[in-house]
Amino acid sequence: MTHLSTLRVNGDRLWQRLMAVGAVGETARGGSNRQALTDQDQAARELFLGWARDAGCSVRADAAGNLFVRRAGRRELAPVMTGSHLDTQPTGGKFDGILGVLGGLEVIETLNDAGVQTDRPLEVVVWTNEEGARFDTAMMGSAVWSGAMTLEDARALTDRAGVSVGDELDRLGYGAAPPPAPHEVAAAFELHIEQGPVLEDAGIPIGVVTGVQHMSRHRIVVEGEECHAGPTPMALRRDPMMALARFLPELYAVADAHAPDGRVTIGFIDARPGSGNTVPGRLELTVDVRHPDAGRYDAMVWACEAAVAEACGTLGLPATWTRFWHAPGVTFAARCIDAVRAAVAITGHDHLELVSGAGHDACNVAPLAPTSMIFVPCRDGISHNEAEWATPAHCAAGTDVLLHAMLHAARA
Amino acid sequence: MTHLSTLRVNGDRLWQRLMAVGAVGETARGGSNRQALTDQDQAARELFLGWARDAGCSVRADAAGNLFVRRAGRRELAPVMTGSHLDTQPTGGKFDGILGVLGGLEVIETLNDAGVQTDRPLEVVVWTNEEGARFDTAMMGSAVWSGAMTLEDARALTDRAGVSVGDELDRLGYGAAPPPAPHEVAAAFELHIEQGPVLEDAGIPIGVVTGVQHMSRHRIVVEGEECHAGPTPMALRRDPMMALARFLPELYAVADAHAPDGRVTIGFIDARPGSGNTVPGRLELTVDVRHPDAGRYDAMVWACEAAVAEACGTLGLPATWTRFWHAPGVTFAARCIDAVRAAVAITGHDHLELVSGAGHDACNVAPLAPTSMIFVPCRDGISHNEAEWATPAHCAAGTDVLLHAMLHAARA
Repeated sequence: MTHLSTLRVNGDRLWQRLMAVGAVGETARGGSNRQALTDQDQAARELFLGWARDAGCSVRADAAGNLFVRRAGRRELAPVMTGSHLDTQPTGGKFDGILGVLGGLEVIETLNDAGVQTDRPLEVVVWTNEEGARFDTAMMGSAVWSGAMTLEDARALTDRAGVSVGDELDRLGYGAAPPPAPHEVAAAFELHIEQGPVLEDAGIPIGVVTGVQHMSRHRIVVEGEECHAGPTPMALRRDPMMALARFLPELYAVADAHAPDGRVTIGFIDARPGSGNTVPGRLELTVDVRHPDAGRYDAMVWACEAAVAEACGTLGLPATWTRFWHAPGVTFAARCIDAVRAAVAITGHDHLELVSGAGHDACNVAPLAPTSMIFVPCRDGISHNEAEWATPAHCAAGTDVLLHAMLHAARA
Repeated sequence: MTHLSTLRVNGDRLWQRLMAVGAVGETARGGSNRQALTDQDQAARELFLGWARDAGCSVRADAAGNLFVRRAGRRELAPVMTGSHLDTQPTGGKFDGILGVLGGLEVIETLNDAGVQTDRPLEVVVWTNEEGARFDTAMMGSAVWSGAMTLEDARALTDRAGVSVGDELDRLGYGAAPPPAPHEVAAAFELHIEQGPVLEDAGIPIGVVTGVQHMSRHRIVVEGEECHAGPTPMALRRDPMMALARFLPELYAVADAHAPDGRVTIGFIDARPGSGNTVPGRLELTVDVRHPDAGRYDAMVWACEAAVAEACGTLGLPATWTRFWHAPGVTFAARCIDAVRAAVAITGHDHLELVSGAGHDACNVAPLAPTSMIFVPCRDGISHNEAEWATPAHCAAGTDVLLHAMLHAARA
């Protein structure tokens, strides 16, 4: 079947569909607001399902609202899966998630156009509520499918208006669908924008993603004693900002010591009572720690916690370090990574091997089926933002790689 | 008149009056909520004026609501002035300001009891809105009296409900009083709690206050670039918290370099968007800088600004440093400081010479008349707080020193 290596997706069709989905819930600045299980989210799903049915696919949903679109194979084997999500952040972009869904559909369309049948069925999945923006649990649908979260727990999540996931699933007609349950999957691939600047910075169109970083977030609270900024000598203060002055450089030094892959982010900080005239009585901040290597990740977390304890101990200020979020790293399956490498070789694109810094639905699929991911660059590394952008050429290149990785894996 | 040196105030009467005023607008935790120009503020003023009239004083108000209570002297000379304020923070204490007013009245009562007449008249002032809590300009009444602020500007200040100072002055009957104007004052003294821990820490009852620190507050804004905490390598970030890690230790080093009098306070800090998952795009913080010596104060401000510029410049992050509040230091009059020293010698109390870390109404009086202040300890240095506390013995000791300083200055 040597002619297959010359097969390429229809980049124009893919782009038009990306723009058509992006127009559903489009924002003033050209992004999308299609939060999970809203009418906008449902409208995008129906657009997608219409194209999928026109492409001859069978369609099924589960009770978590996950959609499974299947192109039959030559044989009744476990399918090759791909997919991502159609929901967005409140001021999200047109690519995060959507590219992975429409890229999967484009693979099917391309094979239809070329009259190519695969041994294994191909399946494109739309996972529900990947963003966790409206309902505060990211990657919810894939977690429920995989068994990492119960359907009950997912249904009980509520948005700020008090509307639950269960309410919305019932309203949109998913409630009566069969309960989510993992089926056998031969291989799974997820195509996604990088959401970081590495590929763009290197001028390279394809990321072969070998895994996902270990990551966790920690809350630091340092207690001090409020006092007047004027009359209180420095030596008599119990100032949590003085502790910060000691440990903040140390936190960044931990990232440096584990460069280039170690990451430390302080995204939230608050000093109470927050008056310019008063030494704070309490300082709170969050520290997000990430590294692809489990041993180095553990060392980083330990070193950050030790730096905080050392600084606060020296100043005699009570401090707590609490892990409030944790996502263990994922190492993707060698055979799926190899399939992506082979696809890169066929398409001739330059590539980098990367570890994902963010979590994706693929993380929930990976424990159940051989899985890997493909990244394409996004402008300035920006995502979760109306300015999020990927070029038509990069979207097509990534989908070409997805096509050949799926073809590779779809052999019996 | 050697018998005068044995004269002491009636500490019990002083204490009972402190508690009686403190009971007006008393809070659940034993503090006072008597914000400027409220009914509670007015009730405390009326209590004070009743005692003053009973003590044979004449009473006048000005259109800023400042109250001037006068005990006639032997001769029609410029008076010796004392006083402070009766308004409090929303959760204020029973001593900040009140001690200075009731201490002044107690001096008059003590002289009445002893049948002592002074050459010069004695005057006790209640300044309006010293706290700047309800209407956001501290030391307002004394500023208007001194000419540092116009009556119009003061009347235009509004509280959060939109009620203006002018509305309240009119409602309480001050609007029709003569416009505020400085009169000749021979000497002025203000008795106040220290609002800091120095006297208590040293176990000393009297602070001879030689001046007020130079002080200013600055807003630092560092611009960065929001990005995802996961996919963005440290080297490609534009993270304002990294700049903070560099300049925050430097700010405290500036205070150290000007120890023990230099003070640097970072009371407010905010990182946007404030998500644990996102490198901040913007960091804002305030820096309060204080030193009693003008040259050292200037050097500190310069060094702090330079440290911020250096750190942000190294990282290529745009940053601004804006002074948004400034109170030049005050050096009190040598003859008033000497009068307090002489009074300390007469009463036999231990004393420290101090520079005030906070501003007081005395700062507005000082440009127009020889002025100084007397401090007494407050528990744990706490002020602007319901827990604010001074002992009866310390209140009496400070008032004894005020008595003898005023007697000294009241000689023709």
